Amino acid sequence: MFEARFQSFEDAGERKASAARVAALRAELKRRSLDGFMVPRADRHQGEYVPACEARLAWLTGFTGSAGAAIVLGETAAIFVDGRYLLQVRDQVDTALFIVAHLVDDPPEKWLEANLSGGVRLGYDPWLHSADEAEKLAKACTAAGATLVPVGENPIDAVWPDRPPPPLAPATVRDLKFAGETSADKLARIQAEIAKLKADALVVSDPHNVAWTFNIRGADVEHTPLPLAFACVPRQGRPSLYIDGRKLSNQTRDYLEGLAEVRQPERFADDLEALGAAKAQVRVDSSTGADAITRLIGEAGGKVVRGADPITLMKAVKNAAEIAGTRAAHLRDGAAVANFLAWFDREAPKGQLTEIDAVEALETVRRETGLLKEVSFPTISGAGSDGAIVHYRVTRATNRRIASDELFLLDSGAQYEDGTTDITRTVAVGTPTAEMRDRFTRVLKGHIAIARAVFPDGTTGAQLDSFARQFLWSAGIDFDHGTGHGVGSYLSVHEGPASISKRGTAVGLKRGMILSNEPGYYKTGAYGIRIENLVLVVETEVAGAEKTLNAFETLTLAPIDRRVIEPALMTADEIAWLDAYHARVAAELMQRVAPQTRPWLEAATRPLRA
Amino acid sequence: MFEARFQSFEDAGERKASAARVAALRAELKRRSLDGFMVPRADRHQGEYVPACEARLAWLTGFTGSAGAAIVLGETAAIFVDGRYLLQVRDQVDTALFIVAHLVDDPPEKWLEANLSGGVRLGYDPWLHSADEAEKLAKACTAAGATLVPVGENPIDAVWPDRPPPPLAPATVRDLKFAGETSADKLARIQAEIAKLKADALVVSDPHNVAWTFNIRGADVEHTPLPLAFACVPRQGRPSLYIDGRKLSNQTRDYLEGLAEVRQPERFADDLEALGAAKAQVRVDSSTGADAITRLIGEAGGKVVRGADPITLMKAVKNAAEIAGTRAAHLRDGAAVANFLAWFDREAPKGQLTEIDAVEALETVRRETGLLKEVSFPTISGAGSDGAIVHYRVTRATNRRIASDELFLLDSGAQYEDGTTDITRTVAVGTPTAEMRDRFTRVLKGHIAIARAVFPDGTTGAQLDSFARQFLWSAGIDFDHGTGHGVGSYLSVHEGPASISKRGTAVGLKRGMILSNEPGYYKTGAYGIRIENLVLVVETEVAGAEKTLNAFETLTLAPIDRRVIEPALMTADEIAWLDAYHARVAAELMQRVAPQTRPWLEAATRPLRA
Repeated sequence: MFEARFQSFEDAGERKASAARVAALRAELKRRSLDGFMVPRADRHQGEYVPACEARLAWLTGFTGSAGAAIVLGETAAIFVDGRYLLQVRDQVDTALFIVAHLVDDPPEKWLEANLSGGVRLGYDPWLHSADEAEKLAKACTAAGATLVPVGENPIDAVWPDRPPPPLAPATVRDLKFAGETSADKLARIQAEIAKLKADALVVSDPHNVAWTFNIRGADVEHTPLPLAFACVPRQGRPSLYIDGRKLSNQTRDYLEGLAEVRQPERFADDLEALGAAKAQVRVDSSTGADAITRLIGEAGGKVVRGADPITLMKAVKNAAEIAGTRAAHLRDGAAVANFLAWFDREAPKGQLTEIDAVEALETVRRETGLLKEVSFPTISGAGSDGAIVHYRVTRATNRRIASDELFLLDSGAQYEDGTTDITRTVAVGTPTAEMRDRFTRVLKGHIAIARAVFPDGTTGAQLDSFARQFLWSAGIDFDHGTGHGVGSYLSVHEGPASISKRGTAVGLKRGMILSNEPGYYKTGAYGIRIENLVLVVETEVAGAEKTLNAFETLTLAPIDRRVIEPALMTADEIAWLDAYHARVAAELMQRVAPQTRPWLEAATRPLRA
Repeated sequence: MFEARFQSFEDAGERKASAARVAALRAELKRRSLDGFMVPRADRHQGEYVPACEARLAWLTGFTGSAGAAIVLGETAAIFVDGRYLLQVRDQVDTALFIVAHLVDDPPEKWLEANLSGGVRLGYDPWLHSADEAEKLAKACTAAGATLVPVGENPIDAVWPDRPPPPLAPATVRDLKFAGETSADKLARIQAEIAKLKADALVVSDPHNVAWTFNIRGADVEHTPLPLAFACVPRQGRPSLYIDGRKLSNQTRDYLEGLAEVRQPERFADDLEALGAAKAQVRVDSSTGADAITRLIGEAGGKVVRGADPITLMKAVKNAAEIAGTRAAHLRDGAAVANFLAWFDREAPKGQLTEIDAVEALETVRRETGLLKEVSFPTISGAGSDGAIVHYRVTRATNRRIASDELFLLDSGAQYEDGTTDITRTVAVGTPTAEMRDRFTRVLKGHIAIARAVFPDGTTGAQLDSFARQFLWSAGIDFDHGTGHGVGSYLSVHEGPASISKRGTAVGLKRGMILSNEPGYYKTGAYGIRIENLVLVVETEVAGAEKTLNAFETLTLAPIDRRVIEPALMTADEIAWLDAYHARVAAELMQRVAPQTRPWLEAATRPLRA
């Protein structure tokens, strides 16, 4: 029987409880002489996934989306969500309690400036906002004649009686055969970077960077195998690691104590103050460093220099062991996906499969590898018009049967100890229309243009993004997301600092980076198309080249549905790429898939040009 | 006889005078209790071309390049130039007097921080630096324990006995049939923008923007038909125009007084102070607004808001009359260029032509149109290895014969009252090598990729730039400049805010913008290739489009040398584009060229695919 263990299809359904909770919060604010409070969807690390005990926005409002914020004032309250969640928020949130505002067009700071009365004291938890964010909020309050007031204990926690305890999943040491570099070596490189930055110390506020630095993994949040932890690395000498001791076995503790001072998280604030008191110049990451960190160091007399955490770039460049691991993970995952696709092709035409069935079957074939640790994000399983919702997440309420003559979009990924995967395939059930074939082929041509791109050192993802869009643009269509994001090594499936998008201008693509290549097209109310493989930046050689050249090696191995391709729209080079890719998929996967999948794989990877 | 009237081939040759001039400056600085002085290559408008009276850097150092700066201290002095000028600076400047530093890698602020002693008072002229620049310099001085001191009269002017007078070329009113919009209408639109910016007034520090706003032209600097002038536009009421009255005929004065208070430039500073005293919020352009402007307003109590001058974007979007004018200018210019190319093809194989001969012949055929007002920049005429110097400017010293089996690169442009042109053609003399043909064809493919691009509203030039490079990248080569710059309407040939380059991220391409499309390839010591046409952003329609689509209409009309093309490298679509372009060139120009050019034009525009 198929089963999804790593994602649920239930709505949290806290909507009904919201009125009483908001009332309790207002009473608590009154006790503290506050007139309002900011409730972001954030933990102390500004992470993508937050543990249950930090899900204050969901508890208070019912809203479970992955981005948003609320502001509760004495009489009014507002919830801010982006375009993806404008429908969902009205299902989940009592709009008699919360005005709905657009997170991008009318962000909290703009709303505050327009809506706060003079003299109001608005509370915020400085651990849940970056310093940049807190500054924007403070400026808006000042402009309205109000004051932004940092709180000590979060007032929501005071009125949340059954608040879950903090996660205490065991932290484990990542095997060196997967990590490829000892933590001691990494720390030496990090300290060299700190010296280059002329800083006395680096605060590591991003737990992904803590996990990479110390070669540890954990399970404190969903879908990303990390332990929640902070670290502080001085330019010279031993770093400090702030992690709850209850997560550490004796063995792990011994390992970590060989590298760092291992301290309880409660010590973190005191140590930041001590750094400040020593007049240290401290680098704090501008995107994940909480305002509280900046305040503790600054108020004690230290100097905070905000900027990128240099570990973010170091972590993005994978070493040989990480690359070997991701190749192995992709072979395993590709075989599982092929088994799924073969099953889907047998079952879907019968007309009984639902979107949830597909999620359960896919997770099951991955689990059957014996090595699945987690799914790397909640699977997006969208049939027909649901496929056109870019961040669709199926629930029991939205679940539908996958009908004939529809496109079915499936975006999923796995966490294996040797690597993280992320793949989207769009497959036809029955007969696709000519328009679907035209659109699918244009998306595929864009995908191939990225896959085949050759570019000099220093090229950014922003310089490549349009290659994926050109064939859509020429038909007057486009897709409203980036072409690709960075991917971690048994870590986050969304990893900075590089991306393939018009905003991806910050850093050049470096050999060893793993990114997704995922152009798409979405016709609202009709169908969605996305073709996603992960790619690795590799050096390539061309005779007579005057520069070091890079290219992408495609890592993901699974057939792309030939039935939705219109070959007349493809050039000879594009067909050659696809045929070579399919030949590789067949060669690599044939012995790895289930015997009953083999004839299907054979057919699915036949060359387009016979 | 051919003749170039608008550019000279002489070196200024001030090198020998430099030692005495530096000594005189040092004495003057001592009189003023200054320990050093900043000498930028800038006028009060931070313009591309500066009038002779503002060419202080050239007078002091001998260096005549278009970008650079010097710092004179008591014992040492340094001159800063970018990579283009590293050879030229050593020819022109006495390096016993001036250390040569790299303007980009070791800019003045970095050099000052490393080289200033504590207590030093470094003078600068706040009219010759933007506020951003002055802040950087002040910060560097502070870091070195020194002080940056604004001066009143520029100390160089005090020791420059034969300093030329300021230019007083007549300002003329641009005919409405070319301008297409009255100045009153433009001012109403500008005032609406000022209101949107919530400013009380806009300082117009860029004379291009003054010229556009008031529909006036002039001849105060080389190659760009503008009068040097400032303006100040209040949110409501009459603007003020600061222009030397000696440039104005009675008729022009009457016209301008119908639009604005016309004042002597000496009044500008007082009026800025008055604005400040009135506590006004004043928008000042961050790239062309002098530090002095910011200081005068700020010190009097006003608030300066630095940002883009909104006129820059308004001016970039050409109206119907400007577009009709540019089309007419391109027909006229294309015929002249064709006459030149036909003559060149007859004469060059004889082996006697020099680079200067080509410049003189080209200017002459343009002048024979009877409508040439100026060349839009000094012609780049590079044979063989000179073609590989991107910003090459031929002088009597570097002039060489154009030999057989060479490529010859010619980048030139004209100012006509109806429009500004800019065209580069690379032509073969004798037989090009297989490598030249390969490189030329790759450049051409990139040129065609831009020419054929279709892109949605809001797309920036940065998103298109790589289309021009992809075929070079795949051969391991590239070019080290942007793909395209904006072009004015009988104004600057280099006009912001849009560009096609990886840095061109600021503004989207808007219908009515004119840009260049000029990919290239440069093999140092061997040859240079560039193919440049101007293009106009136009709306295009595609059946089924979900978005408003834009495309480029190519404006420039002249044959692209078929003899250097390798057809086997081109796709059918690319050949179709080229053949259609050549058919259009033939159809538009055949009756406009000299009779003896017609057989040549016929042959030069034959389809590649017969």
